[in-house]
Amino acid sequence: MKLNCDLGESYGIWLLGRDEAVMPYIDMANIACGFHASDPDVMATTIQSAIKHNVLIGAHPGYEDKKGFGRRSISHTHNELKHLMMYQIGAMEGLCRLYGGEIAYVKPHGALYNDMMANECIYRAIIEAIAQSKLDIPLMILAQVDRVNYQNIAQENGVSLLFEAFADRAYDAQGYLVSRQIEGAVYHDEQKIIDQVIMLVEKGTVQTLDGKEITLQADTVCVHGDNDKSVEIIGRLRKALG
Amino acid sequence: MKLNCDLGESYGIWLLGRDEAVMPYIDMANIACGFHASDPDVMATTIQSAIKHNVLIGAHPGYEDKKGFGRRSISHTHNELKHLMMYQIGAMEGLCRLYGGEIAYVKPHGALYNDMMANECIYRAIIEAIAQSKLDIPLMILAQVDRVNYQNIAQENGVSLLFEAFADRAYDAQGYLVSRQIEGAVYHDEQKIIDQVIMLVEKGTVQTLDGKEITLQADTVCVHGDNDKSVEIIGRLRKALG
Amino acid sequence: MKLNCDLGESYGIWLLGRDEAVMPYIDMANIACGFHASDPDVMATTIQSAIKHNVLIGAHPGYEDKKGFGRRSISHTHNELKHLMMYQIGAMEGLCRLYGGEIAYVKPHGALYNDMMANECIYRAIIEAIAQSKLDIPLMILAQVDRVNYQNIAQENGVSLLFEAFADRAYDAQGYLVSRQIEGAVYHDEQKIIDQVIMLVEKGTVQTLDGKEITLQADTVCVHGDNDKSVEIIGRLRKALG
Amino acid sequence: MKLNCDLGESYGIWLLGRDEAVMPYIDMANIACGFHASDPDVMATTIQSAIKHNVLIGAHPGYEDKKGFGRRSISHTHNELKHLMMYQIGAMEGLCRLYGGEIAYVKPHGALYNDMMANECIYRAIIEAIAQSKLDIPLMILAQVDRVNYQNIAQENGVSLLFEAFADRAYDAQGYLVSRQIEGAVYHDEQKIIDQVIMLVEKGTVQTLDGKEITLQADTVCVHGDNDKSVEIIGRLRKALG
Repeated sequence: MKLNCDLGESYGIWLLGRDEAVMPYIDMANIACGFHASDPDVMATTIQSAIKHNVLIGAHPGYEDKKGFGRRSISHTHNELKHLMMYQIGAMEGLCRLYGGEIAYVKPHGALYNDMMANECIYRAIIEAIAQSKLDIPLMILAQVDRVNYQNIAQENGVSLLFEAFADRAYDAQGYLVSRQIEGAVYHDEQKIIDQVIMLVEKGTVQTLDGKEITLQADTVCVHGDNDKSVEIIGRLRKALG
Repeated sequence: MKLNCDLGESYGIWLLGRDEAVMPYIDMANIACGFHASDPDVMATTIQSAIKHNVLIGAHPGYEDKKGFGRRSISHTHNELKHLMMYQIGAMEGLCRLYGGEIAYVKPHGALYNDMMANECIYRAIIEAIAQSKLDIPLMILAQVDRVNYQNIAQENGVSLLFEAFADRAYDAQGYLVSRQIEGAVYHDEQKIIDQVIMLVEKGTVQTLDGKEITLQADTVCVHGDNDKSVEIIGRLRKALG
Repeated sequence: MKLNCDLGESYGIWLLGRDEAVMPYIDMANIACGFHASDPDVMATTIQSAIKHNVLIGAHPGYEDKKGFGRRSISHTHNELKHLMMYQIGAMEGLCRLYGGEIAYVKPHGALYNDMMANECIYRAIIEAIAQSKLDIPLMILAQVDRVNYQNIAQENGVSLLFEAFADRAYDAQGYLVSRQIEGAVYHDEQKIIDQVIMLVEKGTVQTLDGKEITLQADTVCVHGDNDKSVEIIGRLRKALG
Repeated sequence: MKLNCDLGESYGIWLLGRDEAVMPYIDMANIACGFHASDPDVMATTIQSAIKHNVLIGAHPGYEDKKGFGRRSISHTHNELKHLMMYQIGAMEGLCRLYGGEIAYVKPHGALYNDMMANECIYRAIIEAIAQSKLDIPLMILAQVDRVNYQNIAQENGVSLLFEAFADRAYDAQGYLVSRQIEGAVYHDEQKIIDQVIMLVEKGTVQTLDGKEITLQADTVCVHGDNDKSVEIIGRLRKALG
């Protein structure tokens, strides 16, 4: 069970995230590509840090919206989505080349990620961008109970998938993330977060908000490194996972 | 003697240049990379057109300044320049992958080009970006009479160069372009433009503004495709060059 | 019946619209404010031209999205909408001050305009921005058959409204614009466009796509100045309206 | 002697500065206008905080360069500078209107400020923007020993000036700020900073880096609120000044 974390989200003078503190504990760094956050220099710094710490580099493209941090949906056509993806993935690859790194996977960010999971057309465009470009790297998507359709589309296009679960989010009985609007949707209790990950690893299940246990296969768990407490949790998770 | 032309300089709803009219006549397309002009969709369209017309694709990175079209210098450190270059070259490469094209050379745009020719440090950063990234594609720079220093720097770094002359610009006795501020610096007479290119091809020389003939070795000539007249000139040049 | 037209939609080196050709014929210029199009210099040029031609200056704010020309919805909270409006209206006012002009009205652009008409909450935020800022200028909205609700909200806030009809768009039986997806939604026939405006002026009605005549009160008609033909139509409309 | 501080320099999700901690202690808030930092929402928040704490609102326009935080010079023509100023001042005024505030003065930011002090032409354009717009608010510039020329230009245009000194910067014998490249240019010792301000208030002088005492008339002192220590110093300065 790998730990993945969004990193490289600073921009110019503005710092965001405890990248240096988090990097030693994680396996996969989802590195912003300059559209919703970051810039060529922040990307370069983050890539070098990932290489130094032996962390896999993930291209983390988003909608072009720094003001909204890529958290607002912006309408794109099928082809526009493919271009949006490949511009950012390519830019990340360009900077990786400079420092001898390489992209290991792709994970869309924020609203683009949510739109991909909610809208099969958007997912298809992203899959096709990767397939058509012969990137030969997996796409990371949300681990769900019912994943056949998304798996089929990936398979038809010869793209492999990585499924991620969330360490600090509650799941409902269908295996969907409980909406942030609902109380209890986000876990703040350290032990609960760690327990959720351990359960995913050992049993391949999660406990839903209403107390049931459901199967959820995940390759990786998404963690956050925004503040002292979250960094501490990542450290404990690392220790727990070995 | 190859004809190169800046293309793909539209942005969103805004069109610039007669790309479709010019593409059939040129050999090399310097395609803007989204910082001083263009966006992922314009880049994709331009790449596809270049592939269709068998035109070499050149990454044409510039300063991040759409308002000023990359014509205003913006101060960058050595490393920032390398990141600026590789972000844009990588983005272009990402979109090339999608359509089965590849980047054949790099030519900086506008103020970045001028700064590169005027400031050895900036030139060095650009050369190092290409070398360090193992891009194995040439950098296009201005053909000058005295080119030893710039050639040495390229050679030390294992980067090859392409030298470009200008079809419609007057040269001074030292082989520099006459400043646009000076009368006669830009040729508007069609025949004069064609004569300058033919002379470059057949004799490897140009006639300076004060009437001398000087040696100027060039691999390619830069032409412009902004309006009807310039497109017509490119057509005539194509015919003259065979 | 006043003619209003979107103007000042160029950006940096990129030109859009026949502003100089259109300005002599229109009464009201909806001038872009730098978020979906334009920049401080284009705004200054357009303001000066409007003043010279005695054309009313309208602030024409949009979503912050040059790539999409303000035609893509971007989610904003109530307060964010108010700030979005007042930033752009203020910027326009700042440039008006410099050249001795003043803003006569406000008309949102593109997706912001459509969202305002489709979503009462967004309309309310815009009305409140104007009211709370004590701007004392009217807001231009779409003339519809059923306008009581939007009129009430404006009145409660002490904001006056201007209703605009479209010269070249077909209306349905409810007085809504026929969707652009449907055939016949946009008129290309000159005479039809002029007839629609004359009918609005003389009878306060429009003929719907299915041949009925419905009442539609409008203070102004929106015209377009993108190409030669549309400029010619504006000239003919001007003559017809006197 | 008033304390002025750059504030409102956050952007979207990115926070910068201890605005809330600083606001109670200062007299004048130089509020970024969205070009080098900030956005309409950050501006609105900062304006409301300034109003609440009875702090004068200063428009703090900069070059359009978020990546470089307005610290890199970008070439502008005379008119472009006037437009750059009035767009941002107007935008700030628009947001002030919404919350019942008003702009009390203008202070350019970063490279624009430095360029204004180094280049009389740029200073003139800024002065003319304020004069021509009939803004009737002062421009804040650097307090220097030799100020006759800049004072004359302001006076000719009917613009009043505010002179600012720096609390934590060393001065040379000519009354210029010692370059940051030189050791000792920036004071980190709290007492030294406070002493410099007290001396400015009580004697109208500063001690130069080489130990002389020179006359320097200042209306306001610039302080910084980036970190805990600097906030503490502002608190002590406030107490010392009464």
